[in-house]
Amino acid sequence: MSSAKGRFIAFEGGEGAGKSTQARLLAEALRARGLTVVTTREPGGTPGAEAIRNLLLAPPGEAGWTPEAEALLFAAARADHVAHLIRPALDRGEWVICDRFVDSSRAYQGGAGGLGDEAILALHGLGSDGLRPDRVILLEGDEAALAGRLAARGAETDAIEGRPADYHRAVAAAFRAIAAADPSGFARIDGIGAPEEVHARIIAALADLLP
Amino acid sequence: MSSAKGRFIAFEGGEGAGKSTQARLLAEALRARGLTVVTTREPGGTPGAEAIRNLLLAPPGEAGWTPEAEALLFAAARADHVAHLIRPALDRGEWVICDRFVDSSRAYQGGAGGLGDEAILALHGLGSDGLRPDRVILLEGDEAALAGRLAARGAETDAIEGRPADYHRAVAAAFRAIAAADPSGFARIDGIGAPEEVHARIIAALADLLP
Repeated sequence: MSSAKGRFIAFEGGEGAGKSTQARLLAEALRARGLTVVTTREPGGTPGAEAIRNLLLAPPGEAGWTPEAEALLFAAARADHVAHLIRPALDRGEWVICDRFVDSSRAYQGGAGGLGDEAILALHGLGSDGLRPDRVILLEGDEAALAGRLAARGAETDAIEGRPADYHRAVAAAFRAIAAADPSGFARIDGIGAPEEVHARIIAALADLLP
Repeated sequence: MSSAKGRFIAFEGGEGAGKSTQARLLAEALRARGLTVVTTREPGGTPGAEAIRNLLLAPPGEAGWTPEAEALLFAAARADHVAHLIRPALDRGEWVICDRFVDSSRAYQGGAGGLGDEAILALHGLGSDGLRPDRVILLEGDEAALAGRLAARGAETDAIEGRPADYHRAVAAAFRAIAAADPSGFARIDGIGAPEEVHARIIAALADLLP
């Protein structure tokens, strides 16, 4: 039971941008400062949300999810994750570091998927009372190189990674637009370089939040 | 490939009201008139929606779904069901008879669950473009007798059937209010009596739609 205020940090960006590596490095750095840190990811993070994740990444049947069904499933998984893991941790004064959050839904389903930002924000308002991270770390990289890496993985990709390069370019453009509209909520981080170099940029971008 | 217009009939009501029996009798009667009839149910009806049904009726983990997550999952299942089964059948000129549809979400999650009608209608607008049945058959019965039957089933009930009697009373009240607000869209049918008697009431209530 800490009396400190919990903070909520989300990592965002396209596939292969280094989000999970950087989330891990940040958690280690915060723990070294004596903070209690919960690391989690979306879709998933709780038993209910992980079950929904399985449906999202490997749709049952041959038709696949419509963009609308996909957005509703992501919002349902997030509602479970927020109610049963993220809010309780923040209420205990802990830090929560999440690999993807609602801005991924805005960029993927809202932007690249064509549902629009308003629809995604409405679902998030209904499902999770519109919870926002204290800061979003948007990791930006070399899109062409990332697209090539994904293409090389071929059949190993899931239902979302395996979408065409145009889709992933639209995702990156949507992330840029979302971050540009909320400069104090987002830190756009150059994700190119050694992991420790990128990590140092992230620590600098969180300096005002760190105790 | 029929040139006739497809019709969409939904059966609604509380647990044990006789919906599935009456849906079957109606389908038989329509087929005897030479119509092509698809019978289906919610949540479910397609591989994707049946997978979501399993999550709804047996929530993973111990915490259970929040009302918000539950409403999002129902809307996601319905979006899949409408896109991959109901709309295609109607477009082929077939009749669709569905055991439960969006008015169940309005009565259960919106009314008894406390999310409100507007939220459920917003999810239905986003997920399924607000599709309405041509007629809703609301089967009304002896609520006290139904509650007793459910209670007697005890541990055999699923996550929703097993909720307290107050919840099921609130569901019935919500159904009545929803039907009262749209008299041309709903036929309130007395569900007490022999199945063939109730069936005759239903046929009479659909006379204007039958060829």
